[in-house]
Amino acid sequence: MSFKPSIPKGTRDFGPLAATQRNYIFETIRKVFELRGFRPIETPAMENLSTLTGKYGDEGDKLLFRILNSGNFLAETDKTVVLQGNSQAVASQISEKGLRYDLTVPFARFVVQHQNEIVFPFKRYQIQPVWRADRPQKGRYREFYQCDADIIGSSSLVNEFEMILLIDNVFEKLNIKTHIHINNRKVLFGIAEAFGFGDSFQDFTVAIDKLDKIGSDNVKAELTATGIDSAKADSILELLSFSGGNTEKLSKLETIFTASEIGRRGLDEMQEIFDYITNYSGDAKVIFDLSLARGLNYYTGAIFEVKAADHAIGSVCGGGRYDNLTGIFGLPNVSGVGISFGADRIFDIMEQSNLFPEHIESSAKIMFVNFGQAEQKAALEVIDRLHKEGISAFLYPDTVKMKKQLQYADQLRVEYIAIIGEDELKTNTVSLKNMHTGEQTSCTTEELIGLLK
Amino acid sequence: MSFKPSIPKGTRDFGPLAATQRNYIFETIRKVFELRGFRPIETPAMENLSTLTGKYGDEGDKLLFRILNSGNFLAETDKTVVLQGNSQAVASQISEKGLRYDLTVPFARFVVQHQNEIVFPFKRYQIQPVWRADRPQKGRYREFYQCDADIIGSSSLVNEFEMILLIDNVFEKLNIKTHIHINNRKVLFGIAEAFGFGDSFQDFTVAIDKLDKIGSDNVKAELTATGIDSAKADSILELLSFSGGNTEKLSKLETIFTASEIGRRGLDEMQEIFDYITNYSGDAKVIFDLSLARGLNYYTGAIFEVKAADHAIGSVCGGGRYDNLTGIFGLPNVSGVGISFGADRIFDIMEQSNLFPEHIESSAKIMFVNFGQAEQKAALEVIDRLHKEGISAFLYPDTVKMKKQLQYADQLRVEYIAIIGEDELKTNTVSLKNMHTGEQTSCTTEELIGLLK
Repeated sequence: MSFKPSIPKGTRDFGPLAATQRNYIFETIRKVFELRGFRPIETPAMENLSTLTGKYGDEGDKLLFRILNSGNFLAETDKTVVLQGNSQAVASQISEKGLRYDLTVPFARFVVQHQNEIVFPFKRYQIQPVWRADRPQKGRYREFYQCDADIIGSSSLVNEFEMILLIDNVFEKLNIKTHIHINNRKVLFGIAEAFGFGDSFQDFTVAIDKLDKIGSDNVKAELTATGIDSAKADSILELLSFSGGNTEKLSKLETIFTASEIGRRGLDEMQEIFDYITNYSGDAKVIFDLSLARGLNYYTGAIFEVKAADHAIGSVCGGGRYDNLTGIFGLPNVSGVGISFGADRIFDIMEQSNLFPEHIESSAKIMFVNFGQAEQKAALEVIDRLHKEGISAFLYPDTVKMKKQLQYADQLRVEYIAIIGEDELKTNTVSLKNMHTGEQTSCTTEELIGLLK
Repeated sequence: MSFKPSIPKGTRDFGPLAATQRNYIFETIRKVFELRGFRPIETPAMENLSTLTGKYGDEGDKLLFRILNSGNFLAETDKTVVLQGNSQAVASQISEKGLRYDLTVPFARFVVQHQNEIVFPFKRYQIQPVWRADRPQKGRYREFYQCDADIIGSSSLVNEFEMILLIDNVFEKLNIKTHIHINNRKVLFGIAEAFGFGDSFQDFTVAIDKLDKIGSDNVKAELTATGIDSAKADSILELLSFSGGNTEKLSKLETIFTASEIGRRGLDEMQEIFDYITNYSGDAKVIFDLSLARGLNYYTGAIFEVKAADHAIGSVCGGGRYDNLTGIFGLPNVSGVGISFGADRIFDIMEQSNLFPEHIESSAKIMFVNFGQAEQKAALEVIDRLHKEGISAFLYPDTVKMKKQLQYADQLRVEYIAIIGEDELKTNTVSLKNMHTGEQTSCTTEELIGLLK
């Protein structure tokens, strides 16, 4: 039988090295979250379809993975619908649950469902996989992790600053140079209003959101297609590409927003956030990026997007302020700010630039060669002592040729090899070999512990 | 609209405390795995149904969660089958993927699929959720985590000992007293053969596996129902309840297994494993339990089951030796030994007995009260210093009444409250309150770091 097992397209197996590297990313992010007082929650992989559908637009609904009802699911199906061949109508009759599409909607659902137990302002983080029935392609998977943090139940702008610090901390610890792009939906609305786009704000943001991808000529074409005249479109594009510093941008916009109250409120918000940043000693490069729009409609204030400085890989983190995220589930007007780290892109950058610490490649600090029953027993005793000291160690399980055992240790990138053979048994010592330098020594168990610690 | 969001039955949300406690269990297990040279792998939540079906028996197949094919899934469906109302036949036409039911089958699939990249003996661990469409009841969920470790590609019995040590380490670190029950499928076969059950070994193990649950009278009834006479059934039950020590059990069985070669091989294996244990200084209470059968058919040698000493909660960990797990995917005769920890039962025990360390309840070491713009800035600077020292700290984000802020800190079980008000701003100090003792002090930032570290 030449049957070769496989996994569904768009999904991945992670072997020991990749899984360890991914855990390193998750743990680094988790530690920063916890250092700043965020606490974990977990929600089920499956949500009721009533929770998921209608939240991601028609396109999003199509990308939901649906779970077939258990048991005799056909019993209550309208057979005529089946015969008509309407898959969508049938799907809603035979499936009630779906896999979560992101962590934002489950978070909103969680907050509403548990509103009486939650202590607000609620600082939560969540690191879990999500699933999308997207067409798989390079860098796009059907199962991938999101790492989200939110502060909900507080409208203080110090939370926006908190998020900037958090982002800065995470990427500093991961050793990835980034720029944090920040804009504000109110400022964008101000620009739209100033140029007569107040009524078609959605079209406006959709168009300028593409500036990076399709270039200014094409964005201009999209803007004029909505009815605006060519000169105005040019003025907008000129404004969006204004190359001054953050303070100069604020000043310039102030002269434009004389008639836009919302725009001016946006500027006040940005001013306060930049005041916090000025006082901060960190490395964060925060860029007031007027062309940043982020399509998601639930954002109402500051929006963030983080780009790796030396990689043309798109955004590695994004987020923003929302004022009514939980409204979809019946709890209106709860303001919050959230960000989401994209673990897959972070992984790609770290792999390309060799940013993972070397030690995570090794299976253990030390492997003991196996020479047979008597030697095994002595080795197991030493290993037990090493484990008590928190030093990772293991015995090769089989008594096979030394060459094979050393090759194994090499493949697993073990740092040291220990030998307890006949001679060492007599003298109660361990012969040690450093796999990097080739250096060899002989030592007692106590000396070994001292050396490895 | 009085719409109340909910989650699918049998699934759970984990709030901050429960999620932190669960992470504590996972991280404790993970650390022991890694200390002993096990490395992580991850497999996708979705597997092809061809991988999953036929591996868990007919009952298991019914408990698989199936994913509805995306897009126009009805296009290729045979409509007459739909009209016949045969749900199972239709399911296989409209779904190709399912959620994994355990971690064992995906592991076997992984080993076969990646056999050329894997370095054997392969010590892998895997901590991921699994899904079963079981009828939800107390302690039984449709989504739950398994924590598995395997050593595959080595038939050395030192691996069985490794698993015993691993189990002992994990429960010692979690502070749960356990007994490790061990038996051997070859020994069981020896008993079956000795009493004329060699041909119906499966029935024999199924019957004695229930001894704990249904008692000896009912097991006797099941045994005699298969045709054995009453006296023999009594002898078997007497043997299974033989109350001697491990060594006495070995001796007794030796006298019985004169005609069973397989039984004697099982005794040799047990003798070697007990030899290792005798040499070991740990706390593990290892009980040679002749009535332990474990229904799973892929076990061929040692089998393990771990019970919490002070809780009638069933098994918290189980496993065993297999010789042909990967045979189902076309790679026969690869021997290995594996164990699986049940995180949910471990969680229940730790919660009931208050075994979680107290510090994991707190959101952060210290919270800074928010008095307004100038004070905020000073607080943020101190917090930044604390973060650099690895001390968890945060600022209350809103300038609200002190009482409300203190209540918040209390609800989040923060250990210290820091106050930087007008006076502290002038003297460049922090006023500190210990939330446990009520003690108050005033200190500089440096002193604060020293105190909290």
